[in-house]
Amino acid sequence: MMGSTANGSCEPSASRAGAGAVVDKDVDFANYFCTYSYLYHQKEMLADRVRMDAYFNAVFQNKHHFQGKVVLDVGTGSGILAIWCAQAGARKVYAVEATKMADHARLLVKGNNVEDIVEVIEGSMEEVTLPEKVDVIISEWMGYFLLRESMFDSVICARDRWLKPDGLMYPSHARMWMAPIRSGLGDQKMNDLESAMSDWHGFVEETENYYGVNMNILTKPFREEHEKYYLKTSLWSNLHPDQVVGAPIVMKEIDCLTATVDEIRIVNSTFSLPINIDRTRLSALAGWFDVHFRGSKQNPATCEIELTTAPSVENTTHWGQQLFLLHPALRVNEGDELLISFLMCRSKENHRLMNVDLTYELQQPSGKRLPAVNSKFYIE
Amino acid sequence: MMGSTANGSCEPSASRAGAGAVVDKDVDFANYFCTYSYLYHQKEMLADRVRMDAYFNAVFQNKHHFQGKVVLDVGTGSGILAIWCAQAGARKVYAVEATKMADHARLLVKGNNVEDIVEVIEGSMEEVTLPEKVDVIISEWMGYFLLRESMFDSVICARDRWLKPDGLMYPSHARMWMAPIRSGLGDQKMNDLESAMSDWHGFVEETENYYGVNMNILTKPFREEHEKYYLKTSLWSNLHPDQVVGAPIVMKEIDCLTATVDEIRIVNSTFSLPINIDRTRLSALAGWFDVHFRGSKQNPATCEIELTTAPSVENTTHWGQQLFLLHPALRVNEGDELLISFLMCRSKENHRLMNVDLTYELQQPSGKRLPAVNSKFYIE
Repeated sequence: MMGSTANGSCEPSASRAGAGAVVDKDVDFANYFCTYSYLYHQKEMLADRVRMDAYFNAVFQNKHHFQGKVVLDVGTGSGILAIWCAQAGARKVYAVEATKMADHARLLVKGNNVEDIVEVIEGSMEEVTLPEKVDVIISEWMGYFLLRESMFDSVICARDRWLKPDGLMYPSHARMWMAPIRSGLGDQKMNDLESAMSDWHGFVEETENYYGVNMNILTKPFREEHEKYYLKTSLWSNLHPDQVVGAPIVMKEIDCLTATVDEIRIVNSTFSLPINIDRTRLSALAGWFDVHFRGSKQNPATCEIELTTAPSVENTTHWGQQLFLLHPALRVNEGDELLISFLMCRSKENHRLMNVDLTYELQQPSGKRLPAVNSKFYIE
Repeated sequence: MMGSTANGSCEPSASRAGAGAVVDKDVDFANYFCTYSYLYHQKEMLADRVRMDAYFNAVFQNKHHFQGKVVLDVGTGSGILAIWCAQAGARKVYAVEATKMADHARLLVKGNNVEDIVEVIEGSMEEVTLPEKVDVIISEWMGYFLLRESMFDSVICARDRWLKPDGLMYPSHARMWMAPIRSGLGDQKMNDLESAMSDWHGFVEETENYYGVNMNILTKPFREEHEKYYLKTSLWSNLHPDQVVGAPIVMKEIDCLTATVDEIRIVNSTFSLPINIDRTRLSALAGWFDVHFRGSKQNPATCEIELTTAPSVENTTHWGQQLFLLHPALRVNEGDELLISFLMCRSKENHRLMNVDLTYELQQPSGKRLPAVNSKFYIE
C-alpha cells in the first residue's frame, strides 16, 4: 500500500462520511480545523501584510467602535485580532477558537498583558455560551473566492445568537468579483494532462507485456480523474493586473449584518464581462473578493477600510485569485462580451468545498454569438 | 483564513475525532481510504516493479495453491491481484475494496474476461459477509515500515473469519529490519529548522514594530512544532546500500497465519547494531521490511518468493525506508555497537500512525559506553 493518511490529499467524492446534507462534525474537524492548529499556518496568515494592515487599520482608525465595548472574535487563531481590540480599548473580548491553537492564543494574550480583557474560549462557535451579548463581532472568516471553507456560517450563527441589536460586524460587507483573464496556465495544464496520459499509455503497454493484465479499460476513468485535477479544479494564482482583459464585475454582495446562510449557500449570478483589449486570448475567468469595514448606518466607521484580493503587483495576498480555465481558449477583441451564467453550490461530500456550474457565450459587437459552452469546476 | 481542507495536511494530535481507543469509522474513512480511490495512486503502486514482480511470481510460480481454489483478496484496489489469482486457475476470487475504486476494479475484471471468477465487493473487510470460507487470503497490506496504516488488522480479521483451517496466507511471513545509517539528511533538516527559526525571529520583530504585538512568547512552541516536523518525523528515503554502516538486524517477525492484533499493536524490541565501517558518522537509523510467500508447513510453496524493501541500487520500491535522525550524529568506528531499545505504539489520535520511543547508547570495543540518549519519533 501507498502510505497515506497524514499527508494524503482527500478527494471529497471519495468520502462517504460527508454524504448527504448532514455535516459529520468529527470528520469536519479532522479534515478542516486540523490545519489551523499549526503555528506554521498561523504565521503565513500573520505575514500577509494586506490582510494585517486592513484589520489593524479597521480597528485602530475606528477606536470609537471598540472603546469600552464587548467584542467577540470568531475563530481567533493566534488571537491577534482579539489583542488589537483590547489594545484599542475594548472592555472585554471573547476569543473563540475550535482548535488547540486556543492554548497558543492564551499564551499570546498573556505575553501582551491583556489577559484581564481577552478571554480565550476553546470550542466551536455553535456550541459556545457567552455570559453576555456583544457590541462588535470581528472575524477573519474569508476563504478562497470568499466562501470556500463556509466559515461565514459560524459568524452568522455568532451574530444571531450574541450580537446586540445595534451591534457592529467587522468586516461589515463582502463582495465577490469576476474578470476575464489571459494566461498561459491553461496550456501548461493541458500539457501536464497530455504528459500524464502518455505516461499512462506506456504503463498500460508494460502491464500487458510483463504482467498479462490489460489496463486499457481504465484509460477513460484515468483521463477523467486527471482532467478533473488539471483542468476542472480552480487554480490558486496571483495574477498580474495586465492579465485582466476586461472590466471586473461584482457578482455577489453580502451585508454581514443581515446575510443568512440561505443567501450564501448558493451563488447564482448572470452577468456579462466586456472585453477591453484587442486581439487577445481569453483563457480563464478569475474570481476574487473584497471586504469592507464600514460599521453600520447608525454607527458608521470614521475611516472606512477596504481589504481587496484583486490582482495587484504590490499588494498580493495569501488568498490570491481563483482561476477557472476555459478550454479551448477564445480569440477575443475589444467590444466582445462574454455572457456568463454562474452557479456555485457547496459540495455534497464536503460542505466546505464548492462546485461551480459555468455557462459562457461569446457575443461579438455585431450581435453574433458563438455557441454556448458549459463547464463544471471544483473549488477544492 | 488559509484555505485548507482538501489538500491540507492534518496533524493527528489536533484531531479530537480519534481521541481515545475507539476508532471513529467516518473520520478514518475520510482520512485514510480516500487516497486509495484515486487511479493516480493505484498506478504508482502498480508501477512498483519490485512489488509487482514479487506478487506475480508468488502466484504464478505456485499455481498449485490457486488452481480450483477459493481466494479472498483484502483491499483489492485496482483488482490486479484478484485477476492474477483467476488467471492462475482459482475457481472463485472475492475481491474486497472499501473505496469507490471497487467500480474500477469491476471494470478491470471485466476487461480481462474473468468476471465469472472474480467478484468485487465494495465494503470494509470487517463488515463484509462471504458465502463461503476461502482456501487462500492474498493481500498487499504493508505500509511504511511494515505496520504504518494498520491495515494488517483487517487481514487478521479476514483470516479469523473466512480462512479455512488449512488455508494459506499470501504473504505468509513478514519481518521488520533496522540498520545504522550515514546520511547528510540530518544536517540538511537541521539547516531547514534553523532557517525557519531565523525567519520566525524576523517575523516576531516585524509584528512588534508594525502591529504592536509581541509574538515572542510563541517562539518556544513554534520551535517545538518545527522540531517535530523536521527532526522527529521519520523520513521516507531510498538509501544507497553504501549508507548502511553496520549489519541490519531483524527486530520483529510476524507469521501471518497466526499473528494477532495484540502482537502487532506494539513493537517492543531491544537489540544491538554492530558498526562495521571505521571512522564514519552515524546520523540515522533506517527501518524497512520484507515479506515472504512460503505457503504453510503442510502446504509449502514450490517456489518461495521474497519481497524486500531494503536499501538497493536497482530494486527500489515506493515504500523506501523510514529514516529516524539521530541528533547530534555520533562519530563511530568499526567494532562499536549501538545498543537500542525500540518501542513503537499506535498514535492515540490516529491508529494508522505510529509513535516511536527510542533509546540508544554507543558501546565502544573497550566496553566504555557513551551516555544513553532518548528520542521520540512520529511515523506520519
